[in-house]
Amino acid sequence: MSAPKKPQVAILMGSDSDLEVMNETAQVLKDFKVLYEMKVLSAHRSPEDVQRFVKQAKSRGFKVMICGAGGAAHLAGVVAAQTTLPVIGVPINSSALGGLDALLATVQMPAGIPVATVAIGKAGARNAAILACQMLSLKETSLQGKLAKFKQNLAASIRKKNDHLKKQLQS
Amino acid sequence: MSAPKKPQVAILMGSDSDLEVMNETAQVLKDFKVLYEMKVLSAHRSPEDVQRFVKQAKSRGFKVMICGAGGAAHLAGVVAAQTTLPVIGVPINSSALGGLDALLATVQMPAGIPVATVAIGKAGARNAAILACQMLSLKETSLQGKLAKFKQNLAASIRKKNDHLKKQLQS
Amino acid sequence: MSAPKKPQVAILMGSDSDLEVMNETAQVLKDFKVLYEMKVLSAHRSPEDVQRFVKQAKSRGFKVMICGAGGAAHLAGVVAAQTTLPVIGVPINSSALGGLDALLATVQMPAGIPVATVAIGKAGARNAAILACQMLSLKETSLQGKLAKFKQNLAASIRKKNDHLKKQLQS
Amino acid sequence: MSAPKKPQVAILMGSDSDLEVMNETAQVLKDFKVLYEMKVLSAHRSPEDVQRFVKQAKSRGFKVMICGAGGAAHLAGVVAAQTTLPVIGVPINSSALGGLDALLATVQMPAGIPVATVAIGKAGARNAAILACQMLSLKETSLQGKLAKFKQNLAASIRKKNDHLKKQLQS
Amino acid sequence: MSAPKKPQVAILMGSDSDLEVMNETAQVLKDFKVLYEMKVLSAHRSPEDVQRFVKQAKSRGFKVMICGAGGAAHLAGVVAAQTTLPVIGVPINSSALGGLDALLATVQMPAGIPVATVAIGKAGARNAAILACQMLSLKETSLQGKLAKFKQNLAASIRKKNDHLKKQLQS
Amino acid sequence: MSAPKKPQVAILMGSDSDLEVMNETAQVLKDFKVLYEMKVLSAHRSPEDVQRFVKQAKSRGFKVMICGAGGAAHLAGVVAAQTTLPVIGVPINSSALGGLDALLATVQMPAGIPVATVAIGKAGARNAAILACQMLSLKETSLQGKLAKFKQNLAASIRKKNDHLKKQLQS
Amino acid sequence: MSAPKKPQVAILMGSDSDLEVMNETAQVLKDFKVLYEMKVLSAHRSPEDVQRFVKQAKSRGFKVMICGAGGAAHLAGVVAAQTTLPVIGVPINSSALGGLDALLATVQMPAGIPVATVAIGKAGARNAAILACQMLSLKETSLQGKLAKFKQNLAASIRKKNDHLKKQLQS
Amino acid sequence: MSAPKKPQVAILMGSDSDLEVMNETAQVLKDFKVLYEMKVLSAHRSPEDVQRFVKQAKSRGFKVMICGAGGAAHLAGVVAAQTTLPVIGVPINSSALGGLDALLATVQMPAGIPVATVAIGKAGARNAAILACQMLSLKETSLQGKLAKFKQNLAASIRKKNDHLKKQLQS
Repeated sequence: MSAPKKPQVAILMGSDSDLEVMNETAQVLKDFKVLYEMKVLSAHRSPEDVQRFVKQAKSRGFKVMICGAGGAAHLAGVVAAQTTLPVIGVPINSSALGGLDALLATVQMPAGIPVATVAIGKAGARNAAILACQMLSLKETSLQGKLAKFKQNLAASIRKKNDHLKKQLQS
Repeated sequence: MSAPKKPQVAILMGSDSDLEVMNETAQVLKDFKVLYEMKVLSAHRSPEDVQRFVKQAKSRGFKVMICGAGGAAHLAGVVAAQTTLPVIGVPINSSALGGLDALLATVQMPAGIPVATVAIGKAGARNAAILACQMLSLKETSLQGKLAKFKQNLAASIRKKNDHLKKQLQS
Repeated sequence: MSAPKKPQVAILMGSDSDLEVMNETAQVLKDFKVLYEMKVLSAHRSPEDVQRFVKQAKSRGFKVMICGAGGAAHLAGVVAAQTTLPVIGVPINSSALGGLDALLATVQMPAGIPVATVAIGKAGARNAAILACQMLSLKETSLQGKLAKFKQNLAASIRKKNDHLKKQLQS
Repeated sequence: MSAPKKPQVAILMGSDSDLEVMNETAQVLKDFKVLYEMKVLSAHRSPEDVQRFVKQAKSRGFKVMICGAGGAAHLAGVVAAQTTLPVIGVPINSSALGGLDALLATVQMPAGIPVATVAIGKAGARNAAILACQMLSLKETSLQGKLAKFKQNLAASIRKKNDHLKKQLQS
Repeated sequence: MSAPKKPQVAILMGSDSDLEVMNETAQVLKDFKVLYEMKVLSAHRSPEDVQRFVKQAKSRGFKVMICGAGGAAHLAGVVAAQTTLPVIGVPINSSALGGLDALLATVQMPAGIPVATVAIGKAGARNAAILACQMLSLKETSLQGKLAKFKQNLAASIRKKNDHLKKQLQS
Repeated sequence: MSAPKKPQVAILMGSDSDLEVMNETAQVLKDFKVLYEMKVLSAHRSPEDVQRFVKQAKSRGFKVMICGAGGAAHLAGVVAAQTTLPVIGVPINSSALGGLDALLATVQMPAGIPVATVAIGKAGARNAAILACQMLSLKETSLQGKLAKFKQNLAASIRKKNDHLKKQLQS
Repeated sequence: MSAPKKPQVAILMGSDSDLEVMNETAQVLKDFKVLYEMKVLSAHRSPEDVQRFVKQAKSRGFKVMICGAGGAAHLAGVVAAQTTLPVIGVPINSSALGGLDALLATVQMPAGIPVATVAIGKAGARNAAILACQMLSLKETSLQGKLAKFKQNLAASIRKKNDHLKKQLQS
Repeated sequence: MSAPKKPQVAILMGSDSDLEVMNETAQVLKDFKVLYEMKVLSAHRSPEDVQRFVKQAKSRGFKVMICGAGGAAHLAGVVAAQTTLPVIGVPINSSALGGLDALLATVQMPAGIPVATVAIGKAGARNAAILACQMLSLKETSLQGKLAKFKQNLAASIRKKNDHLKKQLQS
């Protein structure tokens, strides 16, 4: 659950069917104790709500916007068009084309309006959160230690898997 | 040149580099004597101008919106999100991916917000104009005759090419 | 069920296996109270039936043709070749290639013969119906109110989902 | 130049811009002394001319139909829908997608209506002619010797290139 | 079951896992009462058996070779390299890439060595048989009537499906 | 030219042939008066130099790493594996596949190690710089004004192009 | 199980979820009685462990490195950057894109640093082992006999499948 | 120029138009002083010459086979089917599809018959030579020193480029 005031990260998604994927983002942010707000906002179906939310984002204290969408995934681009906050796009595999449509519609932005695009699906959703923490850590140095620890844990978990594999192979 | 008042078709493009392609749309509309207005409006770089234009489109008398864009081509989708007028999308080949990005970003719209997508590039730009005329002809029956004539001319021009080919082969 | 006389929209599909997808088109048209006729007509297996149907379409009162097909999806193009009515193509994912074949075979029409292509599969099938209503609304102004209402409902449903999400997150 | 009467192979192309590619087909048929007729016939722009030609093809003595087209390449499929003669499709690279659209629109035919598809572009155009000769050779045994000779020449030309390469490397 | 002597069509496949697909070819040939022989022969795992079979194919009375294979599908090309009989290639979807690899490896043959490629999977396997019958019909005129009948049945079956659909919609 | 001490952004590229593209990044950073250091460092050809540079990056005061690479573009991923600083990847179109290889090799990172991927080529290179400024602006609030100004200029330049277009059309 | 000392082949994989695929490599090496060591080592999550392992590989007696990875599959490239031993890359289909990302990220290496890439998934994993044996056989001639025997068995197994098919068809 | 006797590496190419690419392989082998023989041999146009060459390859002293081909690139697979020597495949971009066809036709080999595939085009051709040297170095230890030296030179050349870049930026 996100904290009641001053969330720093907005997690937006184009459809509630994207929730399963975008929950990965929320989970990682919780682990890093970064406050967030999560909303369903469609660039196509509720464009005015998107605009209203994005216009107020900076004054409400948001620092990073994370947007997940599938198909002709315009959400991240539409948000990026209306803010100078960094925008992270998570392409979601919700069509017949394996997410290639969402990836290209998210990443191929024109010069002037970047979207920081991560991998298709859950891996990308997790990485969006980590990337947001890396950005926030430029100011909040307490996050730097957590990120370093997280990185060590990644390596440690690989080592543990290796030990497990070794035992499997020896048995 | 578009006529001074009451254009029925808006030709929008995301960048002035799209002008060479979108001029094809304008040329066909001129041939059909359909008034249009042509504008550079970027979903990403001038989103508020897009919104202002689209919000007034219906009351200004526009009947069809044609939008050309390349890369993560969001223009047609963003316009369609803000009007109930039919929106035609022309994917433009302006990136390294041969227009596949623009095609997918234009056509793969979510349920509720259609974009009538045509072929990549100049063929699509011409067809956007013809499709607009077909739509307008549902009300303006004078266009129906022109469309029928246009179709006959297509067949006739193929026949003429055939005669030319025949002569080439015989010589 | 479609009404007995004067349907305005033809829903054609290349195979009865496309029915599950194209029923989405029918359902939306019913919701808009637009009369339609639905038929299986194959550009490849029953070309003469296609031709007969299309040649009479205008005089029978049809205003818009919607064509769903998969694989080397020629139906929309073949219909568009024989009428000046606007033709909407729905690419259907019925092969091993995720509908990319149907999309390209539907959208990449040559200059002169447009097909208004929508998204692959059910989202596209629903959008084909809405696009048809947008076209019809150019003449039948009663549809304009319905389309505006529909658009408001889309935004409202997103808002409702948001409220639901908020409660989920708080619980 | 094709002989004045009883051509056995029809070479059809969707546009006169395809002529440069389809001339390769003609050249190979000339080399095999197989009579052909070459025509521009568009599935989309002159559908009735296509139909008229195809309906008479068998009675006029044609044995094989070769169809070259680009983009949403429907010509071969439309011809195959209207004849029981074997139909060979040559995908032509005339759009921004490197001929992938033409390939998929030609080859992915539904069960019941085959199109014998060859490679994209000039290699495919040459092979369409050889494939036609292979088909004709089932009846006209004189062609079998020519095909065997042609195959030997292919190998011989590779050997000659090898000798040339050897000399280059030694000098 | 194929008849004991003088089969006219060889159905070859690269792996016994392709049997389910290639049985479609066999079934259609049976329906047309065309004798065939079906064999597992791998271009990569049993190249000498392929060569032995192909070298004798003509003298054993074969008229058409049909080759099904997946992945880097070389079988049809390898067979075509060693015979002047027409070779039909059926790309099979047996890898992670949806059969795109098999399609490109089958169809993109160099000038001189055609492979008549049909659709990926079962539709293609059925069409390979029909195409073989069309080729054989150039000599065996009795097949021409069967092919015409088959074509009429395709149209009739579409009409029957239509009647069925009509009843469904009315009920 | 970058300032002599305390650059905040590292611009790394896998090959000096990427310089033309990555100069776009440098130019934008100059415009924003953000100090950078630009280096050729190959994940594959000089892995130890990459490692040495990245290990010292934080203590040397770098805040953001921008990595451009083509083909099997590993540079951004390799850098991201060794730092907790945010890493931006610019896929470069330097192979026969239009940059699709570089895009996928950059963006499809596993959970735990994000790379903020931008568009292929020069548009992406410019956007990498803007994205870096957005990140830096979380701490350096002076950049926020510049970013807002930059955004206004984008819209203004579109408007100017529009005026120019209008004049062209009227003349 | 691999033997306790002097393994000649290292089987590395980027994630323990790749184990099911890479076990195919291990199984084939066991059949050839080639000693191997199998480890989970991630180019992104445990880069230093990768480096440590690869730096010692030659002195520990390894002759060939086999690396399996999915998504932005960098493992094989990162290993190849740090050793002069031959490196074999197995692309694994672990994302939404059917392994195309892993294939391109593995095979499209820059000049100077080859990765010997095999097919996506289990077929590739088995082939990696055979390829390693072929490399080792350049020195260990005892492997040459085994490889010849293995090749004969492949052909024999195809023949057995054929006999089985023949019986099936006759029954 | 290759030495007169006992070449260890065969460089085969499917067409003399591939020579420009495959010369890169030859050049690198010359630099490593590894003897080679270079031949044009087509899997499709001169299959018997391929077979004859491959069958004698081992007894003639060849240790590694390098095969370059474009389109439906079967050469490497056909060679691998007939030898137990390691086979390296170089996909060549000679069709409209950017070499994707050649890549998939080379790499997607079935279990049992590996082809060690390298990058499309000249980078791949150079890497094929280096990979061959790595394989040969398993026996010929003199090559190991050369490979280590070559790797150091790669890093050194990157450093030199860096120095050059630094000077450019300072001037």
